[in-house]
Amino acid sequence: MKKINLLGATGSIGIQTIDILRSYKEEFQLKAVSAGRNIEGIRKVINEFKPELVSVQDKESAELLRSEFINTKFVYGNEGLTEVACYSDSEMVVNAVMGSVGLGPTLAAIESGKHIAIANKETLVTAGHLVMAAAEKYGVQMLPVDSEHSAIFQCLQGENSKNIERLILTASGGSFRNRTREELVDVSVEDALAHPNWAMGAKITIDCATMMNKGLEVIEAHWLFNLPYENIDVLIHPQSIIHSMVEFHDSSVMAQLGTPDMRVPIQLALSYPDRLPLMGAKRLNLAEVATLNFKEVDFKRYPCLRMAYEAGKTGGTMPTVMNAANEVAVSMFLNRKIPFLEIESIVETAMAEHNVLANPDLETIQAVDAESRIRVLEKF
Amino acid sequence: MKKINLLGATGSIGIQTIDILRSYKEEFQLKAVSAGRNIEGIRKVINEFKPELVSVQDKESAELLRSEFINTKFVYGNEGLTEVACYSDSEMVVNAVMGSVGLGPTLAAIESGKHIAIANKETLVTAGHLVMAAAEKYGVQMLPVDSEHSAIFQCLQGENSKNIERLILTASGGSFRNRTREELVDVSVEDALAHPNWAMGAKITIDCATMMNKGLEVIEAHWLFNLPYENIDVLIHPQSIIHSMVEFHDSSVMAQLGTPDMRVPIQLALSYPDRLPLMGAKRLNLAEVATLNFKEVDFKRYPCLRMAYEAGKTGGTMPTVMNAANEVAVSMFLNRKIPFLEIESIVETAMAEHNVLANPDLETIQAVDAESRIRVLEKF
Repeated sequence: MKKINLLGATGSIGIQTIDILRSYKEEFQLKAVSAGRNIEGIRKVINEFKPELVSVQDKESAELLRSEFINTKFVYGNEGLTEVACYSDSEMVVNAVMGSVGLGPTLAAIESGKHIAIANKETLVTAGHLVMAAAEKYGVQMLPVDSEHSAIFQCLQGENSKNIERLILTASGGSFRNRTREELVDVSVEDALAHPNWAMGAKITIDCATMMNKGLEVIEAHWLFNLPYENIDVLIHPQSIIHSMVEFHDSSVMAQLGTPDMRVPIQLALSYPDRLPLMGAKRLNLAEVATLNFKEVDFKRYPCLRMAYEAGKTGGTMPTVMNAANEVAVSMFLNRKIPFLEIESIVETAMAEHNVLANPDLETIQAVDAESRIRVLEKF
Repeated sequence: MKKINLLGATGSIGIQTIDILRSYKEEFQLKAVSAGRNIEGIRKVINEFKPELVSVQDKESAELLRSEFINTKFVYGNEGLTEVACYSDSEMVVNAVMGSVGLGPTLAAIESGKHIAIANKETLVTAGHLVMAAAEKYGVQMLPVDSEHSAIFQCLQGENSKNIERLILTASGGSFRNRTREELVDVSVEDALAHPNWAMGAKITIDCATMMNKGLEVIEAHWLFNLPYENIDVLIHPQSIIHSMVEFHDSSVMAQLGTPDMRVPIQLALSYPDRLPLMGAKRLNLAEVATLNFKEVDFKRYPCLRMAYEAGKTGGTMPTVMNAANEVAVSMFLNRKIPFLEIESIVETAMAEHNVLANPDLETIQAVDAESRIRVLEKF
């Protein structure tokens, strides 16, 4: 039985992780778990899985739950999150929290020797150099929980990474893929949230529409698979059936396919190096799908993707600034304070104004992250 | 340096194997080689690679060459072929001969502990039970030299075969894929030889048009990957870009893609477990390809595929009979003695008239093969 600590149990990835743990109670044991403000959600998890340690966002919630569940230990805040990450003799931490708060616990969990199933983008985007170095030092596996990186990870099984020619990340093109830039001027929040293939959170759905999401994935792929940006390509594939590909230097291309279902990469990260039957999976029927399409990606149409490549190549604190500015901008768009296209201008300006610090440590990253958010907000 | 014995140096696969050996003279050494009647072709190979042992089809050719190359040993006929297969301390035999003559040398090479790069279909179709048992007994690898089986082999790297849900062999549909059965009544040999994607020999091109080729591949896949026929599917994919796929029980599908180029599977079999850069490869550009299509295969449209599944499931000597009858029928069609659709009737009749012998040994297979050919020919 594999013991699991789960960060972010009540978000989209967390809920699907819980689903899988429910299907395989003989295989996995939930030892420690965190949630944010969704107290009703975490109550159900505690009742069903009886974790030993639970962290919530604030002290009041922790005290409330403590009075209800006398056999469970409750902690809270960022320290609580780190405590869950490092708890006991669990072999694996699933990091499914959103935002830069996920970074510290990941590093702490790596230092305590736990394998990481990583769904938190900020961890690799802002601190890939720290995280991958720590993972190597402590001999832990970084298992991607993300359809694209999981696809690449699967394509690389049994292969020698020196034979890789390039990674090809597929991109659906997001909710506005059939519109020109001119047609993006006055799009609504509702339009932007209508993703053609995947049901996901609001932030990531907007990131798909700007293709910042793919840009963040390019940076994550750079760190996870240790490849220069020149060897990481993006290809538009509207159906999201091929989740990503690896081309080898003998010209052979390996691809991983499936109906869009996040439980596949989540479960693979949990069960790796084995695979387990996926309960209730909708199997891919290519004859039914009938057609797969592919198209070059246009950096002029998707400037966020261009900026992400630039931020990645620049390195240091630049990806942190880009990510922070984007997060604030997307939040302002979702709150109807700025038009869609201003997301891109905000990121562009933030990057142009930033003086890069090379090879930043955790504190520097967190300081630059906080400062970048304030700088964007001050302008409104 | 890996030492190689090559059977069938002057056929389509043999010539491409020679191309690869030419690109990698530091990696591979051609120790022994066979050719049929193409004396000019084998002369060039001897001049360039200086193999120690050469086998040709007949005694006269062997004597002629013996007088020209005094440092080379020449042998001939079926015995010569087996001598080349088992020669010296070579690690690997590439079996690229056509027809049932390839079976004996494969078994002999396995018994002498050499890994087999197998392009000869008859070996697995007629004697898969003997070959795979011998390969296991002598601890040798069977490396597929065929785009479909190589694709599956690549999809299975680093995977546990117990997790396989099914194999999906892709089929282009052949030269008549856009015609109904009614439109096949009076097709010409020239039409049948116009394969849309691959340039191959005449026999295999006709087998693509009837889809007997895919049927033979289904039987080969059954033996190579040790899976029941119920878990081997065929899917029509006109572009021949996805060379085949494996679906796992977690619903993840792995695929291998590339522009149609037989040198990829040949080179992988030679270099396995490593990959080598492929010289002069035309890299896959999916944005340029733009569209991949898929369609269910129709057993009524392609009765040879249905018959191959039946022969495979029946087992014993049935695949031998099917293969022999098909070979004779295709040859008669190519010689304009029968119309295209009679290929299918001949195979159907041969199978219906055969009393199956279970678990045949090599001699039985060879006797049934010869007898089946005579039975078909006697009717014309």
